This record gives sequence, C-alpha cells and structure tokens, in this order.
Amino acid sequence: MGYTEKDWLAINTIRVLAADATFHSNSGHPGAPMGMAPVAHVLFNKFMKFNPKNPKWLNRDRFVLSNGHGCMLQYALLHLFGYELSIDDLKAFRTVDSITPGHPEAHDTPGIEVTTGPLGQGISNAVGLAIAQAHTAATFNKDAFPLVDNYTYCFLGDGCLMEGVASEACSLAGHLQLGNLIAVWDDNHISIDGDTNVAFTEDVRKRYEAYGWHVVTVDDGDHDLDGIEAAIQACKEATDKPSIIALRTTIGFGSKQQGTHGVHGSPLKADDIKQLKEKFGFNPEESFAVPQDVYDAYHKHAAEGAAAEEEWNKLFAKYAEAYPQEAADLSRRLKGDLPEGWEKNLPVYTPSDAAVASRKLSETVLSKIEAALPELLGGSADLTGSNLTRWKSAVDFQPPSTGLGDYAGRYVRYGVREHGMGAIMNGLAAYGTILPYSGTFLNFVSYAAGAVRLSALSQVRVIWVATHDSIGLGEDGPTHQPIETLAHFRALPNCMVWRPADGNETSASYYVALTSKHTPSIIALSRQNLPQLEGSIIEKGIKGGYVLHEVENADITLVSTGSEVCICIDAVKYLAENHNIKARVVSMPCFEVFDAQPQEYRLSVLPDGIPSLSVEVMSTMGWERYTHEQFGLNRFGASGAYKDVYKKFEFTPEGIAKRAVATVDFWKDVPNIRSPLNRAFKQLI
Amino acid sequence: MGYTEKDWLAINTIRVLAADATFHSNSGHPGAPMGMAPVAHVLFNKFMKFNPKNPKWLNRDRFVLSNGHGCMLQYALLHLFGYELSIDDLKAFRTVDSITPGHPEAHDTPGIEVTTGPLGQGISNAVGLAIAQAHTAATFNKDAFPLVDNYTYCFLGDGCLMEGVASEACSLAGHLQLGNLIAVWDDNHISIDGDTNVAFTEDVRKRYEAYGWHVVTVDDGDHDLDGIEAAIQACKEATDKPSIIALRTTIGFGSKQQGTHGVHGSPLKADDIKQLKEKFGFNPEESFAVPQDVYDAYHKHAAEGAAAEEEWNKLFAKYAEAYPQEAADLSRRLKGDLPEGWEKNLPVYTPSDAAVASRKLSETVLSKIEAALPELLGGSADLTGSNLTRWKSAVDFQPPSTGLGDYAGRYVRYGVREHGMGAIMNGLAAYGTILPYSGTFLNFVSYAAGAVRLSALSQVRVIWVATHDSIGLGEDGPTHQPIETLAHFRALPNCMVWRPADGNETSASYYVALTSKHTPSIIALSRQNLPQLEGSIIEKGIKGGYVLHEVENADITLVSTGSEVCICIDAVKYLAENHNIKARVVSMPCFEVFDAQPQEYRLSVLPDGIPSLSVEVMSTMGWERYTHEQFGLNRFGASGAYKDVYKKFEFTPEGIAKRAVATVDFWKDVPNIRSPLNRAFKQLI
Ligand SMILES: [Ca+2]
Ligand SMILES: [Ca+2]
Repeated sequence: MGYTEKDWLAINTIRVLAADATFHSNSGHPGAPMGMAPVAHVLFNKFMKFNPKNPKWLNRDRFVLSNGHGCMLQYALLHLFGYELSIDDLKAFRTVDSITPGHPEAHDTPGIEVTTGPLGQGISNAVGLAIAQAHTAATFNKDAFPLVDNYTYCFLGDGCLMEGVASEACSLAGHLQLGNLIAVWDDNHISIDGDTNVAFTEDVRKRYEAYGWHVVTVDDGDHDLDGIEAAIQACKEATDKPSIIALRTTIGFGSKQQGTHGVHGSPLKADDIKQLKEKFGFNPEESFAVPQDVYDAYHKHAAEGAAAEEEWNKLFAKYAEAYPQEAADLSRRLKGDLPEGWEKNLPVYTPSDAAVASRKLSETVLSKIEAALPELLGGSADLTGSNLTRWKSAVDFQPPSTGLGDYAGRYVRYGVREHGMGAIMNGLAAYGTILPYSGTFLNFVSYAAGAVRLSALSQVRVIWVATHDSIGLGEDGPTHQPIETLAHFRALPNCMVWRPADGNETSASYYVALTSKHTPSIIALSRQNLPQLEGSIIEKGIKGGYVLHEVENADITLVSTGSEVCICIDAVKYLAENHNIKARVVSMPCFEVFDAQPQEYRLSVLPDGIPSLSVEVMSTMGWERYTHEQFGLNRFGASGAYKDVYKKFEFTPEGIAKRAVATVDFWKDVPNIRSPLNRAFKQLI
Repeated sequence: MGYTEKDWLAINTIRVLAADATFHSNSGHPGAPMGMAPVAHVLFNKFMKFNPKNPKWLNRDRFVLSNGHGCMLQYALLHLFGYELSIDDLKAFRTVDSITPGHPEAHDTPGIEVTTGPLGQGISNAVGLAIAQAHTAATFNKDAFPLVDNYTYCFLGDGCLMEGVASEACSLAGHLQLGNLIAVWDDNHISIDGDTNVAFTEDVRKRYEAYGWHVVTVDDGDHDLDGIEAAIQACKEATDKPSIIALRTTIGFGSKQQGTHGVHGSPLKADDIKQLKEKFGFNPEESFAVPQDVYDAYHKHAAEGAAAEEEWNKLFAKYAEAYPQEAADLSRRLKGDLPEGWEKNLPVYTPSDAAVASRKLSETVLSKIEAALPELLGGSADLTGSNLTRWKSAVDFQPPSTGLGDYAGRYVRYGVREHGMGAIMNGLAAYGTILPYSGTFLNFVSYAAGAVRLSALSQVRVIWVATHDSIGLGEDGPTHQPIETLAHFRALPNCMVWRPADGNETSASYYVALTSKHTPSIIALSRQNLPQLEGSIIEKGIKGGYVLHEVENADITLVSTGSEVCICIDAVKYLAENHNIKARVVSMPCFEVFDAQPQEYRLSVLPDGIPSLSVEVMSTMGWERYTHEQFGLNRFGASGAYKDVYKKFEFTPEGIAKRAVATVDFWKDVPNIRSPLNRAFKQLI
C-alpha cells in the first residue's frame, strides 16, 4: 500500500524496456510484459524474497513465467534487481549466444528457475516446485527452524490455461492442497488468434474452484496496485489451497494498439514507441534508459533479500549444530551429489538367479536404494501396481488432512496425468533437493513428450520408469505397444534412453541415470520375465554397450537391447547348430552413453571386418548408425499372449537366425567391411 | 421406462460375457463392462439408432468407448445386436489376429467408430464426431430433409477425465455448444491405483459446468434404469450444450470383489465367476452362453435400426432428386474420393517465381483448392496468423449465437489445445464426410503425439500443417526449434512426414496427403522464404524423393529436404569452384513415400558407386538408411535471426562443402560403394 509516482516510474521503465528490446531485436512479445508490469512490480517488491547475488539460495521464493514469450518482463526484472544480466544483455535479446534468448532458459540465465515458453509447462513446473517446497519443509523443518518456507509464484496467460498439461497439474495441485502456490492469470482476453471469445469462453474461475483452488479476482490490473497487493496477501493467507488471481489487464498497456493481439507477438512501431515514452515521461530519443531512482529502489529490495539470506545462513548454521545429520544431508542434496557408497545397494545378479521382469528388477533397485537416497521422490500416473514404482514401506505424499499420507511422504499419486507428471518432475528437479522418478507405460511417455523435451533442454535429472516397453506387453495390443517411442527419445538431445536386458543392466541403468546430474533418463522395462545373462555385469552395462558374448573368428555380431538380448543368445546356439555360423552378441542398453565412450572402445564392441545385425522389436530407425542390417518392427504390433506376438513377428531364435544368415550372405563379398561407427566427420555438439 | 426381468437378463448376459471372455483369455478388464452394462443396455436399446448390417450408415448414432479397456462391453453389444462379430470372436478375445483385440481398433472390427484405449482420446474423438455431425447437418440438411441428425454418445472413466487431452477437447466442446454430444462418466470411484480419492478429488460436475456443459447425475447406475433413461432423455433435450451424465456405478458389479480395483484389470477367479453366474441365474457350467430371449430382444432393436436406415435411404433418394448436386457431393465424400480434376487447382511454380516461405506456399495451396474440396475443414491451435491455415474468405465454425460464424463454417478455432486438436481431427475424419487439417508449430505436434499415433494406427486421413519447422524459425529459440520431431514421426508406422523444398514440392505434399485415404500426414513448413527450384516438379515430388540436380560422373550425392535443399544447390557450385567436386542433389521430401517406390527407381535416385551425404538441420537419426554420411543437428538450437543461427551451425554452402569434401575423401578407397538402399533382407510389414 502507499504506492507513489516512484512505483509507476518503475512499472513504466519495465514497459519501455520491453518495447525497446523487442524493437531492437525486431522480434519478440512486448504485450504481456507491458500488461503485467504492475503485478510484477508489486509481487517482486512487496512479497518476493530473493538475493540476486545468489540466485541459488535455497529458501528464495520461486518465480515462474509460464507465458514464457513474455520473457522481456523477466529479463527486465532480473536486470533491475541486479542479477548478472546487464543492459547489454537486454540489448542482445534474441541474438545468437546471448543469455537473453527468445524464451527463458534456466540453464542459460541466472535467476531463471525453469525453462518456459511451450505453453502450459511453466504452471506445471510451478506445481512441482510447490510440491518440492512442501516436501522439503516437512522433511527438514524443525521447531524454531523454519528453514524452508518459500512460496512459488507463477504468471500464466490464456494459452497456458487452455493446455491440457496445465489442467492435469492444476487438478493435482488442488488435490494436494498446495497453499504455497500462487498463480496470476493475465486475463487480457487476447490470444494469438485474437479475442479469446473465439475459442476460450469457459468459466476459468469456476474451473479452478472445481479443482479446489482459492480464486481471487482483481478487476483493474492496469492501475489498482493496492488491489493487486491485497489479492496476493489474501492468497498467501490461504494456506490450505493453491491460489489463482484472475487479473484483468490490458495487453500492451500504453501502446497505441493496447488491448489487441497486434501487440502480442510483434514489436511496436517506431512512432508507437515514441508516444509510449512521451506518455510515460521518458526521453523518446533514448533507448534502454533506466532512471537511477528505479535502480536504487530495486537494488534496495535486492539488498533486503541479501540480508534475508544472511539471516537464513545464520539460522542454518544453528540448525547444523542442532541437527548435523539433516544439515549435511540437505547440503549434499543441494550440490546434486549422492551419498558416498550409495551404489553398494544396487542389486547384483548371477546367471543362476531366477528370470524376472525388468519392471520387477527396477522395483528391487528402488527398494534397495531408497533408504540410501532420501532425495528420491517417486510416483506413477495411476499404474503403481504395473510400473512397480513404489517400495513397500513408502508413505504417500498427501495432505495430512486426507489421512492418506503426509508431505514428508515420498510417493506421489499423480493420477492418469502423464504430461502433468513430466512437467511436475521438471519442477521437482529444479527445486534442488529432490531427485524425481515416475512410472507409466513406455508408450505413454509420448503423452508427456513436451515435458520430456524440456527436461533435456533444461538439463534436469528426472527418471522415467517406462514399463511394458514393447509388443512384449502382449494382450493390451497395438494401442499400448510402442514402436516409435525409443527412436523418438533417442533422437532427442541430452536424453538417455535405457533398455536393460537383465538385473545387472537394470542396476547399471539406474547407476548412470542417478549420477547424471544434468540429463534426464527413460528406462524402458519389460512386462515379461527375462533371464539373468552370462557375461552381464554392472561395470560393463554402464558403458551403454558391451560385448556380452564373444567368439573367435565370428561371422556376425548380433546387437540387441532389453528383452531381445536373451533371444539373441539362443539364436547364437541355433546358428552354430544349424548354419555353422559363429555369432557374437553385443548388448547395447543405451545409445547415448555408448556414443560417449572412446572410439577405440566402441570399435572393440562393433569392430571392422564383421557384418552386424541389430535385433529390437520396434522401429529400426537409428540402428543403421551401429549395425549393417536391422531386424525390427516398422509396423504396429498385435494383441495376444506375448509369446504368440513374438512368434507372429518372428522374434524367435529361428527368426533371428534367418536374418543373420541373410546378413552374412549379403556381406560376404565385401572386403574390409567397415564398422558403421567409422564416420567421415564429427557432428557438431 | 417399464423395464422388466428381460432387461436384467440382457444386462447380466453382458456382465457374464465380459467375465467369461476375460477369464478365457486370462487377460483384460471385466470391471467396467460389468459396471456399465445397465447404462449400455438402456442407451443402445432405447436411444441409439444403428443398423448392424451396415455399420457405415451415415446417420447412425455414434458410440465411443473412451475407457477402451472396457472393450468387452462393446464387443458383447456388437455381438448381441448382430454385427459381424461372432461368439467365436468373443472367445478369441485378446488373441493374435482376432477382431477382438485388447482395446477397440476401428480398422479391425465392424461397429467400432474410433480406436480407443489410450485414455482421454475417445472422448476427444467424440467431440470431433459431434463437430462433424453439426457441420454436415449445417451443410447438407434442407427443409424437410433432416438428413443428418445423429447423436454422439461416449462412455468415459475417471482416467479419461484426468487426461489433459480430454480437458482440452471438452473445454472446446462447451465453447462450441455441441448439443449433439452426450457423455456418460462411469463414476465408480476406482482407478488402477485404488480409490480415486488418492489423486482425483476435484469436483468434476462443477468443472464441466465451467466448460459450459449440461451436467446430470444418476445416483444409482447399478439399478435405476428409469433414472438412466430419464437422464439420457434430458441430455438429448439440452440442444445448446454438450451433456455429461455423472453415473454412480459399482465397478465389477456382481463380483465378490465388486467396488474394488481388484476387478479393474484382472479376470475374475473361477469361484467368483461361478457365484456370479448363480446369482444372475446362469448355468455355472456354461461359458459364453447367451439366452435366446436376449438375442431376440437385441435383434429386434437391430431390425428397427435396419428399418430406420431403409427409411433414411428413401429420404436420401428424394433428397437426391431435389438436391442432386448436394447428394452427389455427399455420396462422393462418403467414399473418400476427391472430385475429379480437383488437382488442377494445385499451384505450379517456375524458378523465376519469387522466393516464398513454404508456410505461405501452403496457404496458397489451401486457398486454391478449398472451393474444389468442400470437405476440407481447417483450423489452428491459436496460431492462425503464423500457420497461415485460413483462406481469406473462410467462415469460422462457431455456434451461430456467438455471431462469430456458424456450423457450416469450415475453420475451427481450436485454441491452444494441440493434443485436443489432434484427437478431434481423428473424430472428424472418422465421421466420414470431412477431411480435416490443422496447424501448429512442428515442435508442438509433439504435444499431440498420443493422437497422431492413433491417426496412424486407425488409418485416418488427417493433415498437420506444421510450420516453423526448424532452427530456421530463428528468434523464438531452442524451446520452439524441433530437433527430434521428424525422426519421431518418421519412426511412426503409417504416418507420412513431408518437408517440401519449394512451391511445387508443397503442392506435391498436399497431393499425396489428400489422396492417401488411410494415412495421416505431417507437412513440415518453413517460416523463412525459399526459392523456387530448378528441376522441381510436382510429378517428381510425389515420389517422395527424386534427383533435383544431376551431373555426370558425380563425386557425391547430396540428399536434403525442405529449406536445406536450396543451400545444397549453392553448395554444388561452391564445391565445383573451390574443390573441383561434382555433386548431384536429391530432394527427399518424404521418406515413407520414397520407400514405397520400386527399388529400381530408388536406386536410380541413390545409386551404387557414389558416396552420399544427407543435409537436414535436425537430428540425423534415420538418415543412415539413405546416405553414407549425415550432416545434421544432434543438439538443441539457438535463439537469433535465422541466418545467424544457420551460420552458427554451419548450414551454409561452405559448411556443407566442408562435409562433402570429408565424405568424398573418406569413401574414396572403398571399391564398389553400395547404396544404403541395398539390404540383406526385407522388413516385415
Ligand atoms: Ca492472453
Ligand atoms: Ca474409474
């Protein structure tokens, strides 16, 4: 309360910076920053707790710009508050190698919590950040030590509200009663196609009430700073529900085109910027001008944030005395390191151990490591009993009032919400204290493709436990049997796709997934039982590809993954007995990790001089990079008992042998067969 | 009203058949069929209009089982009513090559409208079917000729309601005031993880009211047949809103485990089936037994449906007399044929024509063909001005009361709802009178991956206008720049991915997409301008790959797509001038279509004896199938002006030449270089 001209000067500075930067780069979205400058000013100055000198301070309030195209708003704020983002960075908006790209990228820019732009993702990340806060508080806070009490704030536009991923995440947020989450809906009645009345006439407020949210309306978000402040305050006080403020604003406020979609995604014209600056009392001849008063005011709030962190550091020091173990655990988690020796818990198998489905092997891994890795926070999209993602003694993450668990619980019931789950995991990982994993069928990881892509781009460690990974799921049939899924995610940069063949490889998959701080993983796991293989050990598995079965003077290399590896082993015998062909077998549970091995090692696995045949019951796409010939399934599967389905498509020792014979025959006249690993040049990375 | 023991006998027959079939196949979901048998009995007998002898009759009511795992309900109904689905087909439930797969597949089984199982898809397809009905009625119905007045009914479970795709589609359905759509929510409080209270506690009724739906509740869906009938009747009478009936049921009704998730996804035990049959008055020693009374009753309703079609055929004959042109158009559409000569409208270009972005070329195609192809129904996920999907004179598909268009309008404002849009398009295509296309950025087709997969599996003709198809979109940056997307959809069976290089190839893309009755297409289009290429003609483009630039005694073949083809042409010159290397250029706008050409033709395009290099600014995955070396982008892009971004990643004549030189050098010692098209064996398809 008590807003003055100084506040409006700051607000208008943000607006002018957004107009200048988009004009300067001749690209970008001035409308949302200009419309949301008032609420941003109030939120950041009156409520948000952060220290620009340490953007990673644990107990900072989190801010997510879900309408990421409005990023000039966020870049302007970061600059004004004194983050490592200079006026030159603003001038470099949307140019190559700047830290001010067209949409906010968390790994590029200090102060950006999560990577947004693809609509609906940010608000879903915010739900993850809020879950993370609630969980971290429930786990670490003690009487007199409110270590973690931050809020998560999120701005979002109409587009985010229309996206299904946001619906999924917000429904869950209501169920989970996340009182630490406050969203601000930029209710400007405009989207790219024009007035929202062409496609979006639902009653948003009522929908969010139906989700169990606390809903507040501010009628004049352009002028009513007191009303904005009161609304945010009311939301902070609603501690048993997430809140959303329906904030009526004018897109592109101040522009001659304000209130139209003309200011949504295109820079203002020169004359429009001129009148804007004149109207707001700026010199129309100057660009990127920031009044010193605005810097002073914002730096003052930044200094308060720095002081708050200082206080917090003292609190944490005392906490460390009283609770040394918890403090050490928290510090460790924040570095992303795992506890020393945790990997000793990974199960190890010998060939005499029973055949087990790899989804079950995954359950064993989780059960054995969960105590050593308290940062593990699991879940499933309503397939717990199929994904086997929940260790027996797990407590559900639930609002205590439900009687079904508590916020210290480490298992999230995501419901049938794969995309929301993926985006929430990104928020969980971004918070800093949690290592999230979750399950669904491999086929339905595709529902979450938008979120998985952002895991990879923003370099967060999340793990998908992707069971029922092939036609081997059997009776559920083609609607549930992945064909293209591994190829899809193998083509995604910075995403590890694992498909372990047995227990030791499952342990290896988890080892690499858990220790890769900046890369998401998808672990594809079988529904059906798989034998423990001779020659499979964790130390080999973590190389992504290795020789499982060697033979001198081999005629062919069979290269396979997951449930087909054991069939290849049987094919070796069949080939020897029926065709006098000597076959070696390579297991390649992870392309991406194998690619990262030294070329010498790689060539020892897939050497020159021998033709090779890949065997995997799905799309052959991508296998040409490793093998000369490919046996796969470039069509949809079939519904039936899994053995019948494998037989139908000839994924049997005989079927493999038939193709191995053809491969040997086809390549017999080629002298000096080159391994496909030999390339004319290296890819840019 | 007036239900008797005979009705309960039929209902219990359905329940027992579901129990028998799942027990017999030792797999499947008895719970939903047993719980929903009463509403299915009432709906199909008292309301639904269909003729089992002609499952494709245009004016039939459509039924969608969105909770497709409950397909034994649908298979039982189809059998009882006399569709081509025998008792032996029920016995073959979930076995290889049966027409009763684990989830309903439209192309396999007569009477199945759309392929369901992946949750949330069916209800979204139903929205598409309802849009299609409204549009077809508005287009063809005349005074005294209510040709098309069918309803679309959809059953859905809690899982469907949790999925974001359903939220998107249902929000739009409310906006569109689809009074012809009636959904029945199986409110059984159970999902796979147990009681829905673990994850799904939102107020569903209120949410659907917020979407603008008419919401009715039936408290006892297990017994209250009169209440069910009254509810459906009320929904039919609510003609300006879609309706949803919240039907409280008991999952697995009749089982000893009724009301628990124990009956959701596993067959009943033998003793449970025994008591079930005894309780319902069936002989526990018999399986798959259908009382003749039930057949008689159901066949009677089927005969009424046949008579209704007979009446309709008479009506249509009169209509054809009064409106011969409309009748001919409708008949043609139902066959999936396009009007003779339509293709003459496709624009043709010569190299002297201006350089134009292929998204703009796409707009020109649509504008030129829309009059000839009245079945085209377009749209965009709130990117109309970017996708350029709307011809100038188009009328929006909108409820007339909005004043924004009418139901005869051919352009749908989908809002920012990509996944919903994809699933709605599947419903539109399934209706039979519409050829749907829609736009979004290529990167965001991934949001709709679940729906695209079902387009391909269920063999429907839908077209994605996927603009901003690469790093060439420039400033929006890595969050919007596809890398993995083409590989993903190229790996999907029965999905054509097009990336035309100029105007003639754009026309070729549309030609093949529009004439492929059973295959969806994704047309990837540039934001940036592309020159009209020498050597590009439609007749070559439709082969999916062809020699654009030939040269004798070539040293290398450059193979490329879309916006990189013209850079390859420049590289040819650069290579000749600077390296004395002769390069030929192949344009390959569509892998899938090229793959379908005769091998002789394919080898003339990518011949033996010459090394080849692919050039495409995204993942190289899949290119190894066609070329010896690959120049691509196996990392995320960058935000900046598109020319700067291309330069950063060396997609310039110089950058291509550098790699061409390396390729020639690397392969120079290999005698008799084989084209990668030569394979040791053929894939199963
Ligand atoms: Ca808006
Ligand atoms: Ca249910």
